Amino acid sequence: MLFKNIIDSVALLKRTQCGYIKSFKMAKSTFEYVKTFEQDDTLLPNTWIVVRLDGKCFHKFSEDHNFKKPNDIRALKLMNYAAFKVLHEFNDVLMAFGQSDEYSFILRKTCFLYKRRAAKLLTTLNSKFSSTYVFYWNKFFDQEPLKYPPTFDGRIVLYPSDENIIDYLKWRQADVHINNLYNTSFWTLVLQGGLTPAQAEKRLCGTVSADKNEILYKEFNINYNNEPNIFKRGTVLMRKSLLNESSKKLMSIIVDVHDDMLKDTFWKENSNLLLPKSKQSINHEGPITDIINEQINKGNNTIADIVNVNK
Amino acid sequence: MLFKNIIDSVALLKRTQCGYIKSFKMAKSTFEYVKTFEQDDTLLPNTWIVVRLDGKCFHKFSEDHNFKKPNDIRALKLMNYAAFKVLHEFNDVLMAFGQSDEYSFILRKTCFLYKRRAAKLLTTLNSKFSSTYVFYWNKFFDQEPLKYPPTFDGRIVLYPSDENIIDYLKWRQADVHINNLYNTSFWTLVLQGGLTPAQAEKRLCGTVSADKNEILYKEFNINYNNEPNIFKRGTVLMRKSLLNESSKKLMSIIVDVHDDMLKDTFWKENSNLLLPKSKQSINHEGPITDIINEQINKGNNTIADIVNVNK
Amino acid sequence: MLFKNIIDSVALLKRTQCGYIKSFKMAKSTFEYVKTFEQDDTLLPNTWIVVRLDGKCFHKFSEDHNFKKPNDIRALKLMNYAAFKVLHEFNDVLMAFGQSDEYSFILRKTCFLYKRRAAKLLTTLNSKFSSTYVFYWNKFFDQEPLKYPPTFDGRIVLYPSDENIIDYLKWRQADVHINNLYNTSFWTLVLQGGLTPAQAEKRLCGTVSADKNEILYKEFNINYNNEPNIFKRGTVLMRKSLLNESSKKLMSIIVDVHDDMLKDTFWKENSNLLLPKSKQSINHEGPITDIINEQINKGNNTIADIVNVNK
Amino acid sequence: MLFKNIIDSVALLKRTQCGYIKSFKMAKSTFEYVKTFEQDDTLLPNTWIVVRLDGKCFHKFSEDHNFKKPNDIRALKLMNYAAFKVLHEFNDVLMAFGQSDEYSFILRKTCFLYKRRAAKLLTTLNSKFSSTYVFYWNKFFDQEPLKYPPTFDGRIVLYPSDENIIDYLKWRQADVHINNLYNTSFWTLVLQGGLTPAQAEKRLCGTVSADKNEILYKEFNINYNNEPNIFKRGTVLMRKSLLNESSKKLMSIIVDVHDDMLKDTFWKENSNLLLPKSKQSINHEGPITDIINEQINKGNNTIADIVNVNK
Repeated sequence: MLFKNIIDSVALLKRTQCGYIKSFKMAKSTFEYVKTFEQDDTLLPNTWIVVRLDGKCFHKFSEDHNFKKPNDIRALKLMNYAAFKVLHEFNDVLMAFGQSDEYSFILRKTCFLYKRRAAKLLTTLNSKFSSTYVFYWNKFFDQEPLKYPPTFDGRIVLYPSDENIIDYLKWRQADVHINNLYNTSFWTLVLQGGLTPAQAEKRLCGTVSADKNEILYKEFNINYNNEPNIFKRGTVLMRKSLLNESSKKLMSIIVDVHDDMLKDTFWKENSNLLLPKSKQSINHEGPITDIINEQINKGNNTIADIVNVNK
Repeated sequence: MLFKNIIDSVALLKRTQCGYIKSFKMAKSTFEYVKTFEQDDTLLPNTWIVVRLDGKCFHKFSEDHNFKKPNDIRALKLMNYAAFKVLHEFNDVLMAFGQSDEYSFILRKTCFLYKRRAAKLLTTLNSKFSSTYVFYWNKFFDQEPLKYPPTFDGRIVLYPSDENIIDYLKWRQADVHINNLYNTSFWTLVLQGGLTPAQAEKRLCGTVSADKNEILYKEFNINYNNEPNIFKRGTVLMRKSLLNESSKKLMSIIVDVHDDMLKDTFWKENSNLLLPKSKQSINHEGPITDIINEQINKGNNTIADIVNVNK
Repeated sequence: MLFKNIIDSVALLKRTQCGYIKSFKMAKSTFEYVKTFEQDDTLLPNTWIVVRLDGKCFHKFSEDHNFKKPNDIRALKLMNYAAFKVLHEFNDVLMAFGQSDEYSFILRKTCFLYKRRAAKLLTTLNSKFSSTYVFYWNKFFDQEPLKYPPTFDGRIVLYPSDENIIDYLKWRQADVHINNLYNTSFWTLVLQGGLTPAQAEKRLCGTVSADKNEILYKEFNINYNNEPNIFKRGTVLMRKSLLNESSKKLMSIIVDVHDDMLKDTFWKENSNLLLPKSKQSINHEGPITDIINEQINKGNNTIADIVNVNK
Repeated sequence: MLFKNIIDSVALLKRTQCGYIKSFKMAKSTFEYVKTFEQDDTLLPNTWIVVRLDGKCFHKFSEDHNFKKPNDIRALKLMNYAAFKVLHEFNDVLMAFGQSDEYSFILRKTCFLYKRRAAKLLTTLNSKFSSTYVFYWNKFFDQEPLKYPPTFDGRIVLYPSDENIIDYLKWRQADVHINNLYNTSFWTLVLQGGLTPAQAEKRLCGTVSADKNEILYKEFNINYNNEPNIFKRGTVLMRKSLLNESSKKLMSIIVDVHDDMLKDTFWKENSNLLLPKSKQSINHEGPITDIINEQINKGNNTIADIVNVNK
C-alpha cells in the first residue's frame, strides 16, 4: 500500500475516531469545563472588516537589515508579495492597501469566513502574512540575510458603510503622502545636504508642502512629483481580470497598483469594486508587474474557474 | 558622520516631527474620524490569560513535509523551539504547554503588557511564533526543505482562578494522552501490522486504554509506558533557575520538560509557580536539554540581572 | 434665604467640592483600583441601535391583572403611552414599534447619547419605560389595581444598513400578524365556540392563513380584516409635524399610528424618515389620538423650538 | 369551564403552537435573518458579578420631591425596600449595598441565571428595581406624591477574586463616609449656620476629617459619631438565618444592616459569606427592622424550604 494512500484514508477517518483511553478520557472530561470560558467574538454582520497588520519595532528591524532611507524598494516589494499571497489564499479578502511596514486587508461585508469569528480571522491573516514574509525574504533580499524573525501585530476594525471603508483607505493613503514628503525631504537634507538629523528636523519644522517641494527642487534638483508612485502612494492590491494573450482566455488576477485613492476618478473607474456580488470584471489596464506576471505564467485560473470557486 | 549615528538620532527625533504637508494633512484629518471605529478590547484585570495557537491544516502540512507518524520528533522540537523564543522575548509569559501542532502560552494574572489589549497580545505572540517557526525550520528539518509557509491561528481565553488555569493545563495534557495512545496504536497496526487505516480504525473502535496497551504489547511487543514522555505528555516550558557550573552563578533559564501535570506532585514541586510575585527560584533538576544548553552557552542572564529586568 | 435658591447654588457648586475626609479618602483611593475593572462597551458608530424591551413573565402578569384575551386594549395603550414618554424624553430615539408586551426603540445611526455606551443606553431606556409603566397604570387600568411591579428585560442589537433596520421592523410586524390571527382564531374557538384550549389548538393545527380567516368568518361571522389595526399591526411611534389649528404654528409631535410597514407605500410615504439629518417635516395626516391630543393641549414645542433644541 | 383553567391550559400549549399564517410566516422568515445580528454577551464564568444601579438626575429628582438635606430617611428606606424586593426575587443575588441614590447587587461567582447573559441580568434587575421604587413610593412618602417616574441607569462589572469583590464593597462604603461627613458639615453650615452655599463651601475647602468634626462639634454641638449609621455607612442587605420565636423554626431572611465593611471584623464575622456553597447559616443578631419584621409576619420560608429551593 502506498503511504500517500494511507494518509488520505486517515484524513477521511479523522472525524469518526471512536476509540479512546477511558481513564484519560474521564480526566479530560473533568477538566473540559474550562472550554466554557471561551467567549464568542463573532463580528457584527453586514459590515466591512479591516484587518490591519503593523510591523513591531520595525525601526530597529529596518536598521538591523540596512533598509535604504527613506524608502527601501526591496522591503516594500516583500510586503506586497506577502500581502499578495494572503489575497491569493483568502478569496474573502477583496483588496488590500500597504505602505511602509503596515498592510490593511479589506474583507467583504458579506464575508462569512470562519463564521466571522474575530480572533480566527485576525490570527489566520496575521500568521500567514508573518510566515510568508520570512519564507520569501531571500527572494527580495538576496544580499542581506534575515538576522531574526520579525513580528507583526494586528487589529480588526469594522466599518458599516461603503463611505466609511473608502474614507478608511483614503486615511491610510493620506498618511503615506504626509510621511513620504517629510521623509524624502529629511533624508535628502541629511544624506545629500550633509545636515545632522537634528539640523534637518529644525530646517523642516513649520514648513508646509510647498516649502518642502521647493527645498527638494531648488537645493537638490529633485522634482518630488517624479518620485516613484509606490513611495508616494503605497500599494493597492485588487482583483481584476486580464486577457491572457496566449490562451485568449480572461484570467482573474490580483494586481498591484499605485493608484491615487484620494481622487474620485479611482472610485469611478472601480465603481463596482465594493458591490456585494461583484464579478470583479474590471479589466486591468496597467503595467504587467512581477506579481501579475507570476500569475500569468502559472496559468492562473480563468474567470470561468473563478466563478465556480466563488459559488 | 556614521550612518548608524544618523539612524540613532532619528529614533530620538521621531516623536517630535513637526513638519507636515498641509494639504494632505487636511485630507488626513478629514478621514481620521474612521479611527473612532476602533473598539476597546482590554482584557478583564486579575485573570490568567491563555493564548493558544493551533496549526491550520497541519494534517496536510505534515504530509507535504513527510512528518513521521504518529509523532515527528523534529516537528515537536521546532514547535518547542519557537515557543521557547516567545518566552525568551516576553517576560510576561509565565509558562507554556505544547503538543502536536498547538501551543498554549500562560500570561500572569498581573500581566499588563500592551495594557492587556486582546488583539495586540494575541497577534504579537501569534506572529512571533509563526515567523520563528519558518526562520528555524532548517535547524530541525535539515533534509526536508520547507515547501510553503505554515499558518497558525490563535485565540485568547481568560481564567479567573488558579484552579481554573491548572485545570486548563490538565485538560490540554489529558488530550495528549488520549490522542497519543490512540495514534500510536493506530499507526502501529497500519505500519507494522499491515492493516489498512479502515481496518485499524475498526480494530480500535470501542477499545479502552487497557485494550490498546495490550494490543501494542502482545502483538507488537511495544510497552507503551516506555514511549518517550515528549510523545505521551507534550512539553512544558517553565522559568527556573540553574547553577552555572563554570561561572558559579545562579542563572534564570527557560526549561523544556515533559512532566506530568495531571499529578498533584507536579503542582507541589512547583508550588510557587503561580504566585503573583514569584521570583521563580525553583531549581531545575532535570536533564540539560538543547534549549537549556543554548542558554548556558550564551552566558544567559544571572538571577541578579533578571531581578533588575523584572522591576 | 429661600431653600430653592440654596439648592440651585449647590447644584452649581457640586463639581468643585474640595473638602474631603482625609482618612477615608485614603481608604477610598486604596480600593479605587476596582474601577479599572469596568469595561468599555461603546457601540460601533454609524449603525442603527435597536433597544428592544420585553415583558418578563407577562403571561402570568396578564392573568393576574385580568387582561382580556386575545388582546387587552388597556394594556396596549399603557405600553404605547410608556413608549411615548420615552420618545418624548430622548430625542435620539427616532421611532418605536410595539406589540403585545414588547417594544423596540430605534436610535439614529448618528446617535451619540451617552457616547453610545451600551449599558447606559439600554438601562436608561429600560428603567424609564418600567417606572413609567407603573406610574401611569391607573390612567389606563382604573378598575384594576396593580398588584405588583412588572419587570421588562432588554437587549441592544445593531443594524449597519437602512435595509437591515427596515427588515428588523418588518420582522417584528410580521410577528404581530402571525400571532394575532392565530390568537384571534384560538380565543374565538374557546370563548365563543366553547372548545377547550386543547381542542382549539388541534383544530388550528396545520391551518394556513386562509383557513383561519374562513373559520372566523363562516363559524363566527367575524371578518378578520375588520379587526382593529392596533391588534393586527401593533403600534408605530414616529416624529411628525402637525399644524396647530389654534396657534397656526407647525408643531413637532410624536404620533401613534398602526400603519403597515410591510408595504412599500409606508417607506415611500416616510421616505425621509431614516435620513441622517431629517427635519422630520413629514406631516401627520391620520387621526388625532389621545397621545397627539395631549401634546396639542400642552402647547407642545413648535417646529422652530424643536430646531433649536436639536442644535 | 373556568376561565382560569383555560389560561392554565393555554400556558401548557404555548410551546407547541403549530398553526401559523402562511403568507406572513414566509414574510417573517424573509426578515428573520436580522436575528443573527444579536451578539452574544455571556459573562466570563467564575467571576463575581456586580450590577450597580444609579439614579439619573437625582439631584433634580430629590429637589422636586423635597428630599431632606443632607439625608432623607424616607428616600433611603425606599431604596432599601426596592433592593430588598430584588434580593427576595432573585436568589442568585448574594448581597447588596446601597447609599444615596445608588445600589450595588452582588451575584455569586457560580451564578448561572439567564446563562450569565449580561444584558438580560442587567436589565432584569434594573427594571425590577425601577418599577418597585415607583410601586412602593407611597409606602414611604405618604405626604409627598410622586410627580414623575424616576430613572436608574445600570452597569455590570466583573471581579475575579474574593479580594476584589471585598475591595469593591469597601470602595463604595468609603465613598459614603467621605460624602456624608462633607454633606453633613455643609448643610449644617447652611441650614443652621446661615451661610450661603458658596460660603459654606469656602469654609470647608481644604479641611480634613478632623476639621469637619470640630466644626460640627464646637459650633453646632453635633457629635458626628452619633449620626445614624444608615447615613454614615449606607445599608448592607445580606441573607442570614433567624430563629422564629413563635414557630421555633430557623428562618432564612434578608437583613438590612449598617455594618462597617471597612473593618476586618465584618469579614471575620461573615467569613462564610463569600463561600461558593454557603448555606448562609450566619445567625442574625441585630435589631428586627421593618424589612425583617415583614418577613417574619409573612411566615417566610424556613431553612428547610430554602434548601429545597436552592437545589
